[in-house]
Amino acid sequence: MTDKSSNQMWGGRFAAGPDAIMEAINASIGFDQRMAAQDIAGSRAHAAMLAATGIVSDSDASAIREGLLTVLSEIQGGTFEFSTALEDIHMNVEARLKEIIGEPAGRLHTARSRNDQVATDFKLWVRDQIDAAIDGIEALIKALLGQAEAGADWVMPGFTHLQTAQPVTWGHHMMAYVEMLGRDMSRFRDARARMNECPLGSAALAGTSFPIDRHMTATALGFDRPTANSLDAVADRDFALEFLSCASICAMHLSRFAEELVIWSSAQFRFVAMSDKWSTGSSIMPQKRNPDAAELIRAKIGRIFGANVALMTVMKGLPLAYSKDMQEDKEQVFDAADNLMLALAAMTGMVSDMTARRENLAAAAGSGFSTATDLADWLVRELNLPFRDAHHVTGSLVALAESKGCDLPDLTLQDMQSVHAGITDAVFGVLGVDNSVASRMSYGGTAPAQVRDQIARWKDVLK
Amino acid sequence: MTDKSSNQMWGGRFAAGPDAIMEAINASIGFDQRMAAQDIAGSRAHAAMLAATGIVSDSDASAIREGLLTVLSEIQGGTFEFSTALEDIHMNVEARLKEIIGEPAGRLHTARSRNDQVATDFKLWVRDQIDAAIDGIEALIKALLGQAEAGADWVMPGFTHLQTAQPVTWGHHMMAYVEMLGRDMSRFRDARARMNECPLGSAALAGTSFPIDRHMTATALGFDRPTANSLDAVADRDFALEFLSCASICAMHLSRFAEELVIWSSAQFRFVAMSDKWSTGSSIMPQKRNPDAAELIRAKIGRIFGANVALMTVMKGLPLAYSKDMQEDKEQVFDAADNLMLALAAMTGMVSDMTARRENLAAAAGSGFSTATDLADWLVRELNLPFRDAHHVTGSLVALAESKGCDLPDLTLQDMQSVHAGITDAVFGVLGVDNSVASRMSYGGTAPAQVRDQIARWKDVLK
Amino acid sequence: MTDKSSNQMWGGRFAAGPDAIMEAINASIGFDQRMAAQDIAGSRAHAAMLAATGIVSDSDASAIREGLLTVLSEIQGGTFEFSTALEDIHMNVEARLKEIIGEPAGRLHTARSRNDQVATDFKLWVRDQIDAAIDGIEALIKALLGQAEAGADWVMPGFTHLQTAQPVTWGHHMMAYVEMLGRDMSRFRDARARMNECPLGSAALAGTSFPIDRHMTATALGFDRPTANSLDAVADRDFALEFLSCASICAMHLSRFAEELVIWSSAQFRFVAMSDKWSTGSSIMPQKRNPDAAELIRAKIGRIFGANVALMTVMKGLPLAYSKDMQEDKEQVFDAADNLMLALAAMTGMVSDMTARRENLAAAAGSGFSTATDLADWLVRELNLPFRDAHHVTGSLVALAESKGCDLPDLTLQDMQSVHAGITDAVFGVLGVDNSVASRMSYGGTAPAQVRDQIARWKDVLK
Amino acid sequence: MTDKSSNQMWGGRFAAGPDAIMEAINASIGFDQRMAAQDIAGSRAHAAMLAATGIVSDSDASAIREGLLTVLSEIQGGTFEFSTALEDIHMNVEARLKEIIGEPAGRLHTARSRNDQVATDFKLWVRDQIDAAIDGIEALIKALLGQAEAGADWVMPGFTHLQTAQPVTWGHHMMAYVEMLGRDMSRFRDARARMNECPLGSAALAGTSFPIDRHMTATALGFDRPTANSLDAVADRDFALEFLSCASICAMHLSRFAEELVIWSSAQFRFVAMSDKWSTGSSIMPQKRNPDAAELIRAKIGRIFGANVALMTVMKGLPLAYSKDMQEDKEQVFDAADNLMLALAAMTGMVSDMTARRENLAAAAGSGFSTATDLADWLVRELNLPFRDAHHVTGSLVALAESKGCDLPDLTLQDMQSVHAGITDAVFGVLGVDNSVASRMSYGGTAPAQVRDQIARWKDVLK
Repeated sequence: MTDKSSNQMWGGRFAAGPDAIMEAINASIGFDQRMAAQDIAGSRAHAAMLAATGIVSDSDASAIREGLLTVLSEIQGGTFEFSTALEDIHMNVEARLKEIIGEPAGRLHTARSRNDQVATDFKLWVRDQIDAAIDGIEALIKALLGQAEAGADWVMPGFTHLQTAQPVTWGHHMMAYVEMLGRDMSRFRDARARMNECPLGSAALAGTSFPIDRHMTATALGFDRPTANSLDAVADRDFALEFLSCASICAMHLSRFAEELVIWSSAQFRFVAMSDKWSTGSSIMPQKRNPDAAELIRAKIGRIFGANVALMTVMKGLPLAYSKDMQEDKEQVFDAADNLMLALAAMTGMVSDMTARRENLAAAAGSGFSTATDLADWLVRELNLPFRDAHHVTGSLVALAESKGCDLPDLTLQDMQSVHAGITDAVFGVLGVDNSVASRMSYGGTAPAQVRDQIARWKDVLK
Repeated sequence: MTDKSSNQMWGGRFAAGPDAIMEAINASIGFDQRMAAQDIAGSRAHAAMLAATGIVSDSDASAIREGLLTVLSEIQGGTFEFSTALEDIHMNVEARLKEIIGEPAGRLHTARSRNDQVATDFKLWVRDQIDAAIDGIEALIKALLGQAEAGADWVMPGFTHLQTAQPVTWGHHMMAYVEMLGRDMSRFRDARARMNECPLGSAALAGTSFPIDRHMTATALGFDRPTANSLDAVADRDFALEFLSCASICAMHLSRFAEELVIWSSAQFRFVAMSDKWSTGSSIMPQKRNPDAAELIRAKIGRIFGANVALMTVMKGLPLAYSKDMQEDKEQVFDAADNLMLALAAMTGMVSDMTARRENLAAAAGSGFSTATDLADWLVRELNLPFRDAHHVTGSLVALAESKGCDLPDLTLQDMQSVHAGITDAVFGVLGVDNSVASRMSYGGTAPAQVRDQIARWKDVLK
Repeated sequence: MTDKSSNQMWGGRFAAGPDAIMEAINASIGFDQRMAAQDIAGSRAHAAMLAATGIVSDSDASAIREGLLTVLSEIQGGTFEFSTALEDIHMNVEARLKEIIGEPAGRLHTARSRNDQVATDFKLWVRDQIDAAIDGIEALIKALLGQAEAGADWVMPGFTHLQTAQPVTWGHHMMAYVEMLGRDMSRFRDARARMNECPLGSAALAGTSFPIDRHMTATALGFDRPTANSLDAVADRDFALEFLSCASICAMHLSRFAEELVIWSSAQFRFVAMSDKWSTGSSIMPQKRNPDAAELIRAKIGRIFGANVALMTVMKGLPLAYSKDMQEDKEQVFDAADNLMLALAAMTGMVSDMTARRENLAAAAGSGFSTATDLADWLVRELNLPFRDAHHVTGSLVALAESKGCDLPDLTLQDMQSVHAGITDAVFGVLGVDNSVASRMSYGGTAPAQVRDQIARWKDVLK
Repeated sequence: MTDKSSNQMWGGRFAAGPDAIMEAINASIGFDQRMAAQDIAGSRAHAAMLAATGIVSDSDASAIREGLLTVLSEIQGGTFEFSTALEDIHMNVEARLKEIIGEPAGRLHTARSRNDQVATDFKLWVRDQIDAAIDGIEALIKALLGQAEAGADWVMPGFTHLQTAQPVTWGHHMMAYVEMLGRDMSRFRDARARMNECPLGSAALAGTSFPIDRHMTATALGFDRPTANSLDAVADRDFALEFLSCASICAMHLSRFAEELVIWSSAQFRFVAMSDKWSTGSSIMPQKRNPDAAELIRAKIGRIFGANVALMTVMKGLPLAYSKDMQEDKEQVFDAADNLMLALAAMTGMVSDMTARRENLAAAAGSGFSTATDLADWLVRELNLPFRDAHHVTGSLVALAESKGCDLPDLTLQDMQSVHAGITDAVFGVLGVDNSVASRMSYGGTAPAQVRDQIARWKDVLK
C-alpha cells in the first residue's frame, strides 16, 4: 500500500500521516524532561566512575562532567531547546553535550544503556517525591497536633454509622488522623528503603564487560547498594507501583477527613468554620461558603488510585526485560505525585485555618443519650452486673427518659431506682459528657489526659 | 494562626502560601480551555433563545453572539490571554466578552448557571470525541478489511493457549478484530444516543423561573431533547463514565491485537514484518526491529481504564446535586480520549503497512498434527462413529505418526487401517491444511468463502 | 526432582501435593455449576439441530434431549453428585448423561467444543441477569415514583457542595434518581441487544465441517443471530465486561442515594426516618437506629467495580482465541450480579418503607437565604437589571438581612428600597420557599407541576 | 405502604420480603466464620486480662476460657451450628458459650465492643496470611534457586521488546524473579510490622472506663503494642489494604513469569517443557500440552488487584469511626489471600517440575547477531573508539554479515579489517555466546560467576 492511501485511511486529527503519529505515540520528551536534573546527576556519577576505573580518561570525564553542568544550567534557565526528534531526555542531553564539548561526549554512554539510565533517573525522581511526601505529611501532622492540643478536652460526638455513639474529644478525633498519617509516613519510608538500590551499570539487560564499579555510582547517587540482577534492574517498576500504593492509601485517609469537613461545614452540622482561603463564596449568598478545597481533596484519591490501576495494568504479563510499554510509567507517577503534594498542602492549610465551633460540638455531644454506655459500665463496675444485664437495665432507663422527654442526667434517683434498686447517687458522676470523656482512661482512649499523652509522644517523634 | 506560621508549616513546593495552593487546586482553566469552542457554541445558542423568548433584547443578543465569535477567533488564533484568576473557561470567555461588547455581556448568564453550563460544554466535548472514536474505529476496520481481503485464503495456525489448535486463515483472524471493533462502534453509538440530552437551562440545580425554551437550545446544539430533571442534569457524569467504559473495552481489544503483533514479530514466530515506520531499530543491530508502536498500544489500556477507575472513584457516594469533586472529571476524559485516538491511528497505520510472512504462517499451520480434528470429524461423518470414539481413534493415529516421526498426511492407508479398518482413501482429502480450512463452511467459520462473505457484509455496512 | 522433594518445598496449606493444587486451580465445577440450566438448554438445542440436519439420528437426539431433562431435574432436585475430577459443568452433565442413556451421549459433542459451549452458557446466564437487573431497576423506579408522587410539592433544601443552594421538592429529588435508573435500564437493554448473538457452532475456534444450522440453534435459544466469526466467538468476553460496566454505573448511582440516606438519617439532619426493617438498633440506646442497609448498599460499588477491574485486567493482552485465563470470568460476574440484585432489592425496600420528615425538610429549605436567586431573577425580570448587577443588589440585601438577624422575607419594603429604589411590594411574592419552587417551571425544573409531568411520563413508560 | 405491596414490588428472587433481603445483605456469618479461631483467641486473651485486672473474677474468667476452647473444638470438629439470625461469628460464639457455661458468659463482653473485636480478629487473620504468603514466596524462591543453580551457565536469549538483544544465562533469568520475590517478601514483612498493633480495648470507639490492661492483651496475642488511638483503631483497614497492595504486586510478578512460560511453551519457542502435572492435554492431539496452570496464574492478578480496588473504593470518603460499609472488607481479602497462596503453590510446582530445553535456548541465543554489543564494547575497550563510533563500525559489520548470509563469528578477519583496519584476531574471543555471557562480570551481570554469587547470597539469606 502506498502511504497516500493509508494516510487517507487514518483521516481525522492525524492527517499528517505515519511520521507524526509515530512521533506522537513514541516520543517521551514531552514529559520525561521533568527528570532532567536526575538524568544529569546520573550521567555525572557515571562519568566520574568511568574515569576512576580507567575506562575513559580523566580529561574526557572532566569535560563531560563540566559540560553536563552547563546543560543543566541551560535547562534550569529555560534556554534549552528540547527536540522531539531526539525522542527523550537522555538523547536531548547527550546531543547538547556533544555540541558543547565535542568528541568526549561520545564516550559518556560507555558501559550503560538507555534501559539502566532511565531506570536510574526515574528512581531518583520517585525517591525525591517520597521525601517530599514525607515532608508534606509531617507538616499536616503538625497542623493536626496544633488543633489537638487546643482542643484536647473539647467534647464532640463520636460517631458510628454517622449516628452519635459516645462523646469523644476534638483532640482525640484529630489524633486519629495523626495515627493514619503516621502509618503513611512509615509506609513511604519503607518504600524508600526498599527501592534504594542503583540500577546504573545493568546496561541493556545483561550487565557489561567493562570493569565498572557499580558500588561507586550507587554511593555517589545516594543509593544503599547496586541492584543485584541486571535483568530485573531494567525490568522493575515496583518502586513506582509501591509509591502509588502508598500515595493511594494516604489519599484515602485524606478523603475521609475531607468528607468529614464537608459534612461538618453543612448548615445542619455547623461543627467547623472553614477559612475563606479554603472555601469559595457566592456572589449572591454572601453567607454561603462552599468547602471547595475539601471537596477537591476528597476527589484526589480518584486520580491517584487511577494511576495505580493504570501502571499495574501496564505491567501485567510483561515478559522480561525491558518492553516499551513501560514508557507509560512516568506520566502516571508524575500526576499522582503532583496531586498528592497539592492535596497534602491544601489539607494542611485548611486544618491550620479552620475553627471548631465548640458550642455546637458540645451540644451535639450531649444529646441522644450519648452517655448510655457510661451508665451501663457503671452498673457493671459498681453493682457487678454482668455486661449483658447492665445493657438491659440501661435500655430501660433510656426508654424511661425518652418517655419523659428528658436525657439521662435529668432522671431522678427515684426514677433510676424504679428500674434497678441498687443504683446510688454516685451514678450521676458518670452521666455528663465531660465526666464521660474524662473516664475513658484506657490506653488510646478519649480522656484528655490520654490525648495529651499521645500529643506529647508525637511531638517527641517529630522533634 | 497567622499566615506566616502556617506558610512555614507547609514548606516545600508550596512556599508561596495559601493563595497559591488554593489557586493550584481550585482553578480549572489550565485544562478546561480545551472546551472553549463548546462553551461558546453553548452561549451563542443560549443568547439566541433568550432573545427568542423575550428575556433579553434582540440587539443585546446579537451583540453577545457577535462578540462570542470574536472571542472564539481570538482563542483559535492564539491571541487570547487566559487568566487563572478567572478560574475557568466560562469566566474567561465572559470577562473578555464584557471587554468587547460592554454591558450586554452581563445579560448572557441570565437563566443559567455554571453548573448547567459546564455540563453542557463537557457533553458537547465528549460527543465530539465519540464521533472521532467512531471515525477512528472505522478507519481501522477498513485497514483490517484490506488485510483480510488479501489473505482470505492464506493459512496460519489457529491458537488456543498459544498452542496450535487448528488451521485458520489470515483473513479469518483479521475479521475477528473487525467483529470486536464493530461492537466498539455500536457501543459508542449507543452511548451517544443515550447522552444526547441537553442540560442547558437546568440552572444551578432547580431550573429557572424565566420563561426559557429548553427545546430550542437543545435543538440548536444538536441534542435530541432537553434533560428531564434539573437536579440530575447538573449532577450527572454518566456520559463521561460510559465514554470511558467504551474506550476501555476498545483499548482492551487493541491490547490483544498488539500482543499478537509483538509475539508475531519475534524471531521465533516471524509471522509478520512490521514496517519501519512503526518500529524502531538499533544502531548496532541493523536487522533488529523493535515493535515499539505495538507495545505502546498494548499499554494504552492502562491509562484509559485507569481514567475510568479514577472517575468512578470520584463519583462514588457523592450527594446531589453538584459537588466540586466533579471538577476532576475532565482531565481523565481528555487524556483517555487523546490516547484512544492515538492508539487507533497508530494501529491503523501498523495494520496498513504490515506484511504477513505467508510461508512462515503456512509452515506453522501444517505442523503439530493440526488437522487431527478434521480426521476425527471425518470418522464421525463418514464412518458414523460417535464423537468420543472418533477422538480415541484419532489419538491413536497421531501417536502412530509421532512414533514414525511424520505428520498425519504422511501415514499410509495401511497405517490408517491398522488402527481402524473402515478408513478409506478418501480420508486424505481432509488432512491438508488447505482442505481443512476450506471444509469449515459453517456460518462464521474459517473457510475462505465464509470469510469473503463476512468481508462483503462489512463493506456493505460501512458503505 | 521427585514429587516428594517438591512437595516438601511447597509446604503449608498445599501439603497434599501437585495433584491437589492443580485440581484446586484448574477445576471450575465449584462455581460453574450455577450455569447448569443454561448448559442443558444449549445442549438440547444443539441435539435438536444435529437431528434436523441429519448429523445424528432422530432417535439419538431424542434420547439425548430426554436424558438431559433427567439430568436437569436431578440437579434442581439436589440429588446430582458433582465431581471435581470431571472439572466443569459440561463434563459433569455429559458424564451423567452417558450413565443414563449410554452410547448416544457420545454423539452430543459432535460439531461443537467446550470453547463455544462455555461461551454460549455464560452468555445465556449473563442475559438472564440483565433481565433480572432490569426488573430490579424497574421495581426501584416504582418505589421512587411512589415517594415522588406523595411529595411532589414538599419543599426541601437543594444542595450544592452539601450547602443549601435553592429550595427544591422532595418529588424532584426522587425523580433525579429515576432519571439515573432510567439510563441504567437503557444501558442494560443496549448491552442485551448487542450480546444477543449465539456462539454455538463456532466449535474450538475455526467452525466445523459438519453441515450444521447455526441459525436454528440461535433461534431456539432466543438469540437474534449466530456470531459472525468463530475465532471471535470463543475469544470474546465483551458481554461480561459490558454487564459489569452497566452494573458499576448503576451501583455508583445507588451509592450516591445511600450516602444521602446516611446523612439524612443523622441526628443533625433528621430528614428521613428509616424503617426498623432496614436499620439496626442498639441494645443500650433504644432510640438509635443505624442505617446499616444504606451503608452496605453504599459499599456495593466496591465489589461490583472491583469485579470490572478484575476481568478487564484478565483480558488485557490475551492473544486469540481461547486462553485458560478466561476461566476467571465467571466468579467475578456471579458475585457482581448477586450483589447488584441484592442492593437493588434492599434499596427498593428502604425507599418503600422510609418516611420523609416534612417539617424538618421545610424548615431547612427556608433557612440560609435560600431564595436569594429568586430575588435576583425577579430583579432581572421585573426591573430589567443585567444579571450580574442583579446579583450585586441581592448580595447587599442578604448582607442587610444578615446584619439584622433575619431572613430575606422578613425585610421591609423600605429596607429593600434602601438598596435599590425600584423594588416594589411584588418582590415578596417570590421570597417564600413554596413560591420559589412553584416558579421554577422550566422543563425539568423543580416546580410541582413539572415534577408531576415527569411522574406521569415515567408511569406511562413503565406501563 | 403495607409489606405486601412492597414485597410485590421487589419481585424476583427476593419474593421472601424485607426480612430475607435484610438478612442477606446484613449478616456476615456466611463468611466471617473463617475467623472463628482468631475470635476465640482474642476472647480468651480478653478474659484473662479481665481477671488479672480484677474486672471479672478468676473463676468466671476460667469458665469463659475453658468454654471457649469447647466452642473452638466444636467448630473445628464441624459440629457447631452457625446461625444466620445471630448475624456474625462474634455473636455465634458468645451465644454458644452462654449455652455451655451460663451466666459468666455475659461478663465476657465487658470493656470491649464488636468494633474493636472484629478489628482484632481480622488483623489476626490477615497477619496469619502474611506469614503464609512469606512461606509461599520462600518456597518459590527455593524452586527458582534450584533452576538457577542447575542452569547458571546455560545460555539463552535475553529479550527486550521480545526481540533477542544479548545472550544471558538461564540462571540469571531465574534470579531476576528471585529479586522480585525478595522484594515481595520484604514488603509483606514491613506490612506485618506496621500492622502489629492491637485494637482490643478500644471498645466502641472511645476506649473504656474499666481499668483494663491493653498491653497485656496485646502481648498475649503476639502484637507489639496496643493501638494508640481508639477512634482510629476501629476505623482503620490500612492493614487489609496494604496486604492487598503487597499481594497485587506479587501477583503482577507471577503474571510476568507466567506469560513467559506460556510463550516459552509455544511450538515456535519450545524453550521449556512443562510437566504433565501442570498442563492439560487434548484427547485428540496427544502431543499437545496446554499450559493451563501458567495461564491461570497469569490471570490471578485480576481478582487480587480487583479486590484491592474494591476495598479502596469502599473506604473512600468514609467518616470516622466505624461504618457498616467496612463489613465488605473480609470477602475481598479472603478471596485475594486464597488465590495468592494458590498461585504461589502452583508456580512453585511448575518451576520445580519444568525442564529447560537447553539446545533450543542455546540456538536461539546465538542467532540474530546477539553478540553485536560485545563486538562494539571490544572496539571501545581495545581500540579506544568512542562508544558512538564503535556502534557505527559494528553496524557496518553486521550489515556485511547479513549480506553474506552468516553471523558475526563467521566473518573472516579480512572482512573485519575491511570495515575497520585496527581489528585484530583477538576480536573472535568475544563473539561466541559463551564468551559473551562470561564477560559480563559487572556486579549483578549475567556471567555465570556473578549468578552463582547471587545464588549463594540468597541461600545464605534463606538459611
